[in-house]
Amino acid sequence: MSEIYFDNSATTKPCSEAITAMENAMRYTFANPSSLHMAGAKAAELLLNSRNEILKALHGESISPLLPRKPGFKSAKGVGKLIFTASGTESNNLAILGTLEKCKITNPRIITTDSEHPAVLMPLEKLKSKGADVIKLSTKGGKIDLNEFMEAITPKTVLITIMYVNNETGAVYNIPEIFKTAKKLIPGILCHTDCVQAFQKVSFSPASLNADMITVSGHKVHAPKGVGALWIKDEVIQKNCPLPVILGGGQEDSFRSGTENIPGISAFAAAVKANGGYTAYNFFSERTARLRTLLLQNLPENVKVNTPLGNFSPHILSLTLPIKKSQPMLNFLSSEGIYVSSGSACSSHKNTVSHVLTSFGLSMDDADRTIRVSIDPDNTEDEVIKFCNVLADGIKKLAK
Amino acid sequence: MSEIYFDNSATTKPCSEAITAMENAMRYTFANPSSLHMAGAKAAELLLNSRNEILKALHGESISPLLPRKPGFKSAKGVGKLIFTASGTESNNLAILGTLEKCKITNPRIITTDSEHPAVLMPLEKLKSKGADVIKLSTKGGKIDLNEFMEAITPKTVLITIMYVNNETGAVYNIPEIFKTAKKLIPGILCHTDCVQAFQKVSFSPASLNADMITVSGHKVHAPKGVGALWIKDEVIQKNCPLPVILGGGQEDSFRSGTENIPGISAFAAAVKANGGYTAYNFFSERTARLRTLLLQNLPENVKVNTPLGNFSPHILSLTLPIKKSQPMLNFLSSEGIYVSSGSACSSHKNTVSHVLTSFGLSMDDADRTIRVSIDPDNTEDEVIKFCNVLADGIKKLAK
Repeated sequence: MSEIYFDNSATTKPCSEAITAMENAMRYTFANPSSLHMAGAKAAELLLNSRNEILKALHGESISPLLPRKPGFKSAKGVGKLIFTASGTESNNLAILGTLEKCKITNPRIITTDSEHPAVLMPLEKLKSKGADVIKLSTKGGKIDLNEFMEAITPKTVLITIMYVNNETGAVYNIPEIFKTAKKLIPGILCHTDCVQAFQKVSFSPASLNADMITVSGHKVHAPKGVGALWIKDEVIQKNCPLPVILGGGQEDSFRSGTENIPGISAFAAAVKANGGYTAYNFFSERTARLRTLLLQNLPENVKVNTPLGNFSPHILSLTLPIKKSQPMLNFLSSEGIYVSSGSACSSHKNTVSHVLTSFGLSMDDADRTIRVSIDPDNTEDEVIKFCNVLADGIKKLAK
Repeated sequence: MSEIYFDNSATTKPCSEAITAMENAMRYTFANPSSLHMAGAKAAELLLNSRNEILKALHGESISPLLPRKPGFKSAKGVGKLIFTASGTESNNLAILGTLEKCKITNPRIITTDSEHPAVLMPLEKLKSKGADVIKLSTKGGKIDLNEFMEAITPKTVLITIMYVNNETGAVYNIPEIFKTAKKLIPGILCHTDCVQAFQKVSFSPASLNADMITVSGHKVHAPKGVGALWIKDEVIQKNCPLPVILGGGQEDSFRSGTENIPGISAFAAAVKANGGYTAYNFFSERTARLRTLLLQNLPENVKVNTPLGNFSPHILSLTLPIKKSQPMLNFLSSEGIYVSSGSACSSHKNTVSHVLTSFGLSMDDADRTIRVSIDPDNTEDEVIKFCNVLADGIKKLAK
């Protein structure tokens, strides 16, 4: 049975370039980059080159200066550093826990939203239990109200952590505006954004977002699992912030210890390059938008699309189905070799209704009959058509 | 130029079984193990099988019950769980920081030694700055004095963290005796041991060590970098201890969040199995002891061997050379394609004299002219002979 993978927001298939890089590093550059001999130096060089490749894709230095640049985009040379971690989750933990570990204010305020990933919400829960004052902005309809934000911000606010693209709805939040406003009101405030679902999918740079810290993850961009990174602005890093969460031998400029995952890191860089570096979002958004349009044209009539275009990335489609619960549909589609999800993969085994979808505005019942289709440029038109047909069959079978 | 790699305590070359497992996971089992569809279930199954393979190698269940067992070894079924992390460093952080996060005692005492890895020392420094009372036992001559330990232990002692095999001297510390004594004196005390240099190299099981938590790392046993694990005794895990260091989606039974590194984990399991599982130490110690003997027979006369046999693992040889500093010798050997190290790789760029060697009893000057040769069964007799010859040349060239 041929398989159709529409769960690309949960994870993507590693590309051949990533697999080759991984294999080459394991075979030929296996030494410890901290070792002082030539084999170690070779590993350190591969680490440096990989770091630069990903920095380039974040900073946009690969754009020729002759081409028109995005408004708000500044030359980014030396603007920030990249700290490699094991996952987007670890990067979020470092940004949030590490910033608050450094902070000396009692009962500091942290502003976030009601639709963040558990990798942001759980560290915030921990901080809350230690006295932090965590404010969650509404993301109803996929939008954050600037006025609500301006009411929430106080002089005691030390950190804002808001994702750029929501992993269940594809909503692109107004980060540039929020972070710019925050910095005007509270100089020295730190602005972190989880860009795991945004990197190489929508257009941004650290400067365009006004961000101090940015989380990215390898396995969402066709690199293997086990590698993520936290981009940190030079100004912030010079203040020795955030404090490390994992301590030890002082790797990653002491921001994150542990022998560097050279195979994973080099595969991350290879995938980022193969995707198209800084301008990857061009092809990605154009191609996923085309597949999305085809999908919408062929969708059974009684399916409700929660995510219009506009401030939504085309690669994530949230669909509420005219059935009782999404789980039997996931099983039916899976039995036909079609893989989609309900909510995020991380929460899927918990058997609770997605907090993201209810925050978005769905009723508990509707959230419980909603599926997420996440598209990748590697998906084909035929797959989209087949999905729509099988979904229609499933609805007939499972209709309430 | 053919290369001779004698830096196996810094990292090992991934074996072909690990590379194949890595590649297969990336190509065919790439889904998120938390996803509820069949592709996710397949990834979850690979995760489970990998976990069991490594648990078997730790618990010794692969030994037929008909064979004579090591004294003190008990059937280990269901005795403990394995939490995957990104490194030995992260495992040590989880064991130490997570245990103290759970602990409600003010100014708790933690007992360790003066020759631990930075991945243990740095988390302890952090805890010390927050009021913990950290006692470092002497490891002079590679031995821990039980009387010194018994004087150090108090009712406020909540954690003991001592490595099993030292990474710079190969000293095998008397963990079974110390942990047994600790548990007799303070019931409920937690005993953690960093077994990064011990796993599959010397004979042990959690039961034989009387350990509650054991750190292991993939890249020291021919798996790729980026994967480690913390074994935790069932009794401890049932108390929900240690608290997680990385929070988020609740993977690894909520002890460590982040999408599981399936390729790395399956490669770790493949390497552990290829090495020989629980009984890997038989071949490993027999083979490295043979190479060690050959090396000692051919060593230039004026080289001082710091590590006799007895309570030392044969794979690590600490050699003090009749030259001013080790660094020019590392460079000379490296220029001849021979890779050894001074001290541990983690501290190598810091340009300080190894705290492990001075704790062992070496003078600062002697520590500064000491190299570590770490042998693997894959090394050959010819490599050993060539190393001895080139070392003799180097000594002539660099003699003080």
